[in-house]
Amino acid sequence: MSRFPRLADLTTDVEGWGFFLCTSKQTRTGRSGSDFLILTLQDVSAQKVAKIFDDIERFGAQFESGEFVRVEGKGTFYNGQMQLVLSSIRRVHAKQDRLEGFREEECVLSAPRPIDQMWSELTGRVAAMENPHLRVLLSRILTDHAEQLREWPAAQVIHHAYRGGFLEHIVKMAEVGSLIARAYGADADLVLAGVILHDIGKLQELAYEAGAASYTRDGNLLGHIALGLILVREAASGVSGFPLELRSRLEHLVLSHHGTREHGSPTEPKTVEAFILATVDELDARLHQVRRAVREDAGDGEFTAWHKRLARVLYKGPEGSS
Amino acid sequence: MSRFPRLADLTTDVEGWGFFLCTSKQTRTGRSGSDFLILTLQDVSAQKVAKIFDDIERFGAQFESGEFVRVEGKGTFYNGQMQLVLSSIRRVHAKQDRLEGFREEECVLSAPRPIDQMWSELTGRVAAMENPHLRVLLSRILTDHAEQLREWPAAQVIHHAYRGGFLEHIVKMAEVGSLIARAYGADADLVLAGVILHDIGKLQELAYEAGAASYTRDGNLLGHIALGLILVREAASGVSGFPLELRSRLEHLVLSHHGTREHGSPTEPKTVEAFILATVDELDARLHQVRRAVREDAGDGEFTAWHKRLARVLYKGPEGSS
Amino acid sequence: MSRFPRLADLTTDVEGWGFFLCTSKQTRTGRSGSDFLILTLQDVSAQKVAKIFDDIERFGAQFESGEFVRVEGKGTFYNGQMQLVLSSIRRVHAKQDRLEGFREEECVLSAPRPIDQMWSELTGRVAAMENPHLRVLLSRILTDHAEQLREWPAAQVIHHAYRGGFLEHIVKMAEVGSLIARAYGADADLVLAGVILHDIGKLQELAYEAGAASYTRDGNLLGHIALGLILVREAASGVSGFPLELRSRLEHLVLSHHGTREHGSPTEPKTVEAFILATVDELDARLHQVRRAVREDAGDGEFTAWHKRLARVLYKGPEGSS
Amino acid sequence: MSRFPRLADLTTDVEGWGFFLCTSKQTRTGRSGSDFLILTLQDVSAQKVAKIFDDIERFGAQFESGEFVRVEGKGTFYNGQMQLVLSSIRRVHAKQDRLEGFREEECVLSAPRPIDQMWSELTGRVAAMENPHLRVLLSRILTDHAEQLREWPAAQVIHHAYRGGFLEHIVKMAEVGSLIARAYGADADLVLAGVILHDIGKLQELAYEAGAASYTRDGNLLGHIALGLILVREAASGVSGFPLELRSRLEHLVLSHHGTREHGSPTEPKTVEAFILATVDELDARLHQVRRAVREDAGDGEFTAWHKRLARVLYKGPEGSS
Amino acid sequence: MSRFPRLADLTTDVEGWGFFLCTSKQTRTGRSGSDFLILTLQDVSAQKVAKIFDDIERFGAQFESGEFVRVEGKGTFYNGQMQLVLSSIRRVHAKQDRLEGFREEECVLSAPRPIDQMWSELTGRVAAMENPHLRVLLSRILTDHAEQLREWPAAQVIHHAYRGGFLEHIVKMAEVGSLIARAYGADADLVLAGVILHDIGKLQELAYEAGAASYTRDGNLLGHIALGLILVREAASGVSGFPLELRSRLEHLVLSHHGTREHGSPTEPKTVEAFILATVDELDARLHQVRRAVREDAGDGEFTAWHKRLARVLYKGPEGSS
Amino acid sequence: MSRFPRLADLTTDVEGWGFFLCTSKQTRTGRSGSDFLILTLQDVSAQKVAKIFDDIERFGAQFESGEFVRVEGKGTFYNGQMQLVLSSIRRVHAKQDRLEGFREEECVLSAPRPIDQMWSELTGRVAAMENPHLRVLLSRILTDHAEQLREWPAAQVIHHAYRGGFLEHIVKMAEVGSLIARAYGADADLVLAGVILHDIGKLQELAYEAGAASYTRDGNLLGHIALGLILVREAASGVSGFPLELRSRLEHLVLSHHGTREHGSPTEPKTVEAFILATVDELDARLHQVRRAVREDAGDGEFTAWHKRLARVLYKGPEGSS
Repeated sequence: MSRFPRLADLTTDVEGWGFFLCTSKQTRTGRSGSDFLILTLQDVSAQKVAKIFDDIERFGAQFESGEFVRVEGKGTFYNGQMQLVLSSIRRVHAKQDRLEGFREEECVLSAPRPIDQMWSELTGRVAAMENPHLRVLLSRILTDHAEQLREWPAAQVIHHAYRGGFLEHIVKMAEVGSLIARAYGADADLVLAGVILHDIGKLQELAYEAGAASYTRDGNLLGHIALGLILVREAASGVSGFPLELRSRLEHLVLSHHGTREHGSPTEPKTVEAFILATVDELDARLHQVRRAVREDAGDGEFTAWHKRLARVLYKGPEGSS
Repeated sequence: MSRFPRLADLTTDVEGWGFFLCTSKQTRTGRSGSDFLILTLQDVSAQKVAKIFDDIERFGAQFESGEFVRVEGKGTFYNGQMQLVLSSIRRVHAKQDRLEGFREEECVLSAPRPIDQMWSELTGRVAAMENPHLRVLLSRILTDHAEQLREWPAAQVIHHAYRGGFLEHIVKMAEVGSLIARAYGADADLVLAGVILHDIGKLQELAYEAGAASYTRDGNLLGHIALGLILVREAASGVSGFPLELRSRLEHLVLSHHGTREHGSPTEPKTVEAFILATVDELDARLHQVRRAVREDAGDGEFTAWHKRLARVLYKGPEGSS
Repeated sequence: MSRFPRLADLTTDVEGWGFFLCTSKQTRTGRSGSDFLILTLQDVSAQKVAKIFDDIERFGAQFESGEFVRVEGKGTFYNGQMQLVLSSIRRVHAKQDRLEGFREEECVLSAPRPIDQMWSELTGRVAAMENPHLRVLLSRILTDHAEQLREWPAAQVIHHAYRGGFLEHIVKMAEVGSLIARAYGADADLVLAGVILHDIGKLQELAYEAGAASYTRDGNLLGHIALGLILVREAASGVSGFPLELRSRLEHLVLSHHGTREHGSPTEPKTVEAFILATVDELDARLHQVRRAVREDAGDGEFTAWHKRLARVLYKGPEGSS
Repeated sequence: MSRFPRLADLTTDVEGWGFFLCTSKQTRTGRSGSDFLILTLQDVSAQKVAKIFDDIERFGAQFESGEFVRVEGKGTFYNGQMQLVLSSIRRVHAKQDRLEGFREEECVLSAPRPIDQMWSELTGRVAAMENPHLRVLLSRILTDHAEQLREWPAAQVIHHAYRGGFLEHIVKMAEVGSLIARAYGADADLVLAGVILHDIGKLQELAYEAGAASYTRDGNLLGHIALGLILVREAASGVSGFPLELRSRLEHLVLSHHGTREHGSPTEPKTVEAFILATVDELDARLHQVRRAVREDAGDGEFTAWHKRLARVLYKGPEGSS
Repeated sequence: MSRFPRLADLTTDVEGWGFFLCTSKQTRTGRSGSDFLILTLQDVSAQKVAKIFDDIERFGAQFESGEFVRVEGKGTFYNGQMQLVLSSIRRVHAKQDRLEGFREEECVLSAPRPIDQMWSELTGRVAAMENPHLRVLLSRILTDHAEQLREWPAAQVIHHAYRGGFLEHIVKMAEVGSLIARAYGADADLVLAGVILHDIGKLQELAYEAGAASYTRDGNLLGHIALGLILVREAASGVSGFPLELRSRLEHLVLSHHGTREHGSPTEPKTVEAFILATVDELDARLHQVRRAVREDAGDGEFTAWHKRLARVLYKGPEGSS
Repeated sequence: MSRFPRLADLTTDVEGWGFFLCTSKQTRTGRSGSDFLILTLQDVSAQKVAKIFDDIERFGAQFESGEFVRVEGKGTFYNGQMQLVLSSIRRVHAKQDRLEGFREEECVLSAPRPIDQMWSELTGRVAAMENPHLRVLLSRILTDHAEQLREWPAAQVIHHAYRGGFLEHIVKMAEVGSLIARAYGADADLVLAGVILHDIGKLQELAYEAGAASYTRDGNLLGHIALGLILVREAASGVSGFPLELRSRLEHLVLSHHGTREHGSPTEPKTVEAFILATVDELDARLHQVRRAVREDAGDGEFTAWHKRLARVLYKGPEGSS
């Protein structure tokens, strides 16, 4: 039995073994009355459902959700998606398994671009800001939240939902926002600040552990827009001489970045920079979904299957083109 | 020429004189090319439009918007509403005019119930709260914002739009919220805290001067819900030992009190107390509009004229019933 | 094997026996091609799905939907909910099973408050009405429909969906409606009449038998609002001297109690009493759903699972608090 | 000075005299401070605004709203519409003015087709119904409400808003509904009954006097759909042996004829006949608006001015085509 | 084993054999880990799901999707619908199976009315058109697209989804559209042209093969309304002397026939004929869904099960009536 | 009397003379019964209402709408906007008035950037396209429609509503679209093609004459999206070897550029380029409105007056900042 390819490249009927992160583990009772285990496994490239039908008590005792595991099994196609049916599973023993090729970072679903590269691009942009108040404020925020900002996903499910996804989203928005700001003679520093801070409340909205995100109490009761506002207000208080008018503009960016009240913004864009930020945020999230749907679609037609969230199919190009 | 009745009782063709607060003053050019002055005047009972067609340069120099004035003129009916057409106007000379009956408080549109009475009812409720953290927090807020809370209107236009209107709205909501909380075994202290704090951000959203409210910078850019959140967060920080969980519940009340995102709440009610608060707030505002529309409707049918905001007519009762 | 606890307290892997009401019984073919029985069982506390996989022909012949049954089996957790997998089932033999503890009223899902207590509170309120026309009208309606009003659920699925639920909903609304009417100086008799009559059309909209409700022909073709209108019109005709204007107000309450046309009210509230009624109805239904979701949520986090109808999670309080 | 042409043909700067029905009369104060009278006048062909600027006290005493009047004046174009500016006005003295050509029926805005002709077409259709229960029911209703059904407009403002408009709407719907029912093998008698009864509640919803319609108390509090339901229920009670199932179908037609709840139907079409009725009603109202907009548009382009209710312009055909 | 009845009449537990068209064939992995085949089979009367659990490799090699097949098996009831569980399947051998009663046209889901009859009704209507330009244009289109127009379904799923369904929809719309056009004095030729052309773009939007429809590239990227516009534009270019104004009217019909922008019409009806066309199209599609839901509903109550697309139940009539 | 400043700089009570383009001319009857002329005048910087109260017959004969005029008068403030009240007006005599400074291009409301500069930027972009099919197609379109593309406004009213506005909108979109396409690795040629063609149908939708735009027959009946589709289809037919797949992508861009069906796109974006195009189009239109509202707002507060179309006020910055 050979090692599995990356999960993104898994095909049906391939048997093998591999190292993964297990991010969820549940017991279910099948219709026949017998129980089975249903897991979520991930590596750097993708995330898949896995099931264990035999000896589930024995195997169930060998690992917990949140641990790295070594599995054996084969790929199957179920309900239009690739899955794994496992014949054995156990938790990773780091030292010893490393000899067989276990690498932690290879088992965590991650952004395609290296995190260090993205981080240095972002800190470079901040260091180059002209407005000294914003430069100080953002430098501190990047320093204080570096670990989270580097590692977190951008969202639980919808887009950029993997290690470094938050950073990837911000870095791309910073690039695009900067171009648009210049094209329209808008305040590029303010747009960059908005880009970095617009979802900063998510650091308190979500708790992110071992590949699984969940809402915190304040995440559910207040939401990331309100939490972001408080964070910005407190951070600005810590920068002596931070102008009140600038603070208002900045907080307006955080509050209005969803664009409309229906989408959860208690106030709607009222400055050129706020219109740009809301546009760039939505466009980046949209394009990320489109690209991912096109890449992950398993069918062989010119169009993807129906995309529920976007409520349409997407064009992949003529057959044989990719 | 005798003194005008209260503005609420003004009738057509009545000539007279009176003391009022002027809350807006503009020059317009009529179709014939000649200019006229258009003012807004108020007394304790109502607010009316007034116009001056003759000698406008001389009269325009005699007063400013925001001042108390003494006018002469007569009532006319224009576009379905009572107006005043003035033959003269000048600013009040307090000392001397007091001899003729000028009283400041008689010239400011006000809540029907005496402010001191409402205030003592509200402070009594706070003093009786069982939860010591909330009691301390709210006592301070009542103390710190006493002047505004006593004097302000509840809204610019829609409901309780007069001196003491804010307080009137809170006091009635406190009464009703307390009854409902008890009926459903909800946390009555929390509901009361929500009632007092739900619109507290309006104290920064609006600037209120000489009978005229206008939006502040942060009022427009952040909105009263966000401003209220910040105020509560800061106030809670000032109360030592204020429990985090209680703070979350309280901030949730402020954020969710509009009930839905479409109405500007970035988060929707998720606790029994939040459902009660949103319900009581909407009901009180609605009933205030209904009562006012019924009271002010000038027609003699059983129904009011079309009420734009409520998008319906309202039933006044059988003719001759009031 | 010991007796099951109440269904509300059922836990996984508990084996036992019990008496229940069976409210639905269907045969399904499993994927493996073999059939199984799927039932709905209830007792006074809750309602659960139950399945029989073996000997289904023999067991299927031992009972019908709508009968009380005695079952043996064990609790299992399936798709996030507790179920029963039965090893045997038969209809109850009342006489003999009573010796083992069978009590009919224990096998019917019911309101938590005793029906007699609620009924006497409601009739007391009617007897105390000041308006003689309304008092006569409502006394008759309570008398004529006593059996249904005491026993029925308030709704098929959404809220108060159990024996006595209709009465529970009305009694609580009467309490709250009376408090609010007094607070706003509204006509408390009219509000009480609206409370009792607002859903009276449901007595013809639904047929309720052996724990299962279904729509009648007129229920589907006319709906309970129209049926309620007709019932009120006919009842008022039977009270000599019932004033036309009062009848109009009353019928308006029935027609407008859903608050908006989108929610099925052909006319929207146009009186203070109609606004109060619609508010109290919605609040009571909402709070009932919130309380039930919090109570029934099986998870151990601070929030319930996603509530489909309310489209949000609900806050249960800090872990370990309940 | 010669007699005015019909109002539909009035042109600017034409001076003349004429007989009309005055359906509204108000005094307004102009900007210059002087009052003027503003009236609504109609004849069989159209309805126009008229104004009197001079001697308004004298002229105001010569007639009331609801009376036939004799006027002198000239046509003017104001705000995109033809108006009359009057130099004199007085009430009609029937006997004497008849000598000059006054005919009551010429002064009331009316349907283009003769009422007797439409009425006999409708009664003919009822007499030919195959279902005896429906035939009896509808014959009685036509008899009992003959006067109103013959004379009333179909709506206050939107469509068929003139004498005989109600009948015109029903007769055309009967024709079209009958054709569609036959094409789809639907119950033609039921469709015809629905056509005649769908708006029957308007006879109680509106009070119609001297060319002016207003809402009654029950019209505002219950609405014509609810009033129609009650009327049908009572009428069916009066026909011995009227089958309950047929009554349900008929009442369903009345309740569902607006098609959706948003449009005020508390229940939506659930039978083939109900779908047909709602479709025919909407189509006839729409086409009537389209035809009228095209006919009345004063511009010389290929399209009408913006039609507010339909939210679009309408195509009149190539220039010079009509 | 006897031959199956028509699929529309299939009942549970009936064993037999039959000829069908297979329009889809997929392999799925069951929960137990073993694979099964899931097919869609149709005959002239209906379409059903079929499954094969045993020997799937052998049977899977005996036929492909798109072929006629001979099957053995029995009817079962699963998830509220009739299915077939097959014990054997093979492709049809036309010559030999014809001896046993195989007829191609009996194995393709088809409109109830004979296609030749509908086609001759439609060509007759076109031949009788008065407008020579439209007559020439439509004759050509009928000739050029005869095969597709005769054979295609009207829609993939929603209504008239079977052989000849497109034609059936057009022929019925032509009948009804003609009646309504005459009743309103509209241009009947234009309405007929609109009826025939309104969905003509579907001939390029969909690819239809062996009973299965799928979207083409232009179908997904442009949609049938845009494709229809281009087709009409090109066809009109081919008719010498086709008036520009007539072309505009015709293209307007195609573009506006969904009635509103929300439903995909980039322009809304602006002529009497466009209103008629949109109405007739929607009514025919609606009634087809209603009739089908009533006919296919398997329950024994007076109402159908919940109809998802129409979002309501439908009335079938009193029990025992059909 | 000195020459007026540019209309954008007009202030109240300034008397003077000037040359303008008159784009509309109507007679109205004032309340006093006397007529006046109401005109729209423009110069390169702005557009204003002008009125003539005296001698209107004489002055009315001196010019027509669509002509350049020489006027004398003064600025007045009416209903919150600057207007001109004219004391004399006559058409321009080009030769002679040129001596006094009349320049045609100074009298037509125009984009701020020189047209030649924008045009050469655009043609440069097209010449640099890598895809030869698109380069040929677009070069022809630029050549064939050069005059219109250079001169036209982008919209009748909403944004870029002046000479060269169409070009200004396209050139800015080309700049921004190119940046975004590169940032996301999208097909920049396709985005540029979409930018140039997205509104190309407007060249047939509108007729633009002497500063005034109006809808054509096909503009109203088909709309610019459908007209654009036809134009692209025909243009692509003229380029030999134009790939079908590329044509589909291009037509999809035109059809989907409004983003949603509610906004008039019969198909929604299904490619990365289509998402980018719709985003850039909306952003440019929005920012143009925001900038214009901020620039034209006459008030002295920090915020503009209520912006009807955007349904909000806009932030101008701290007082004294501009």
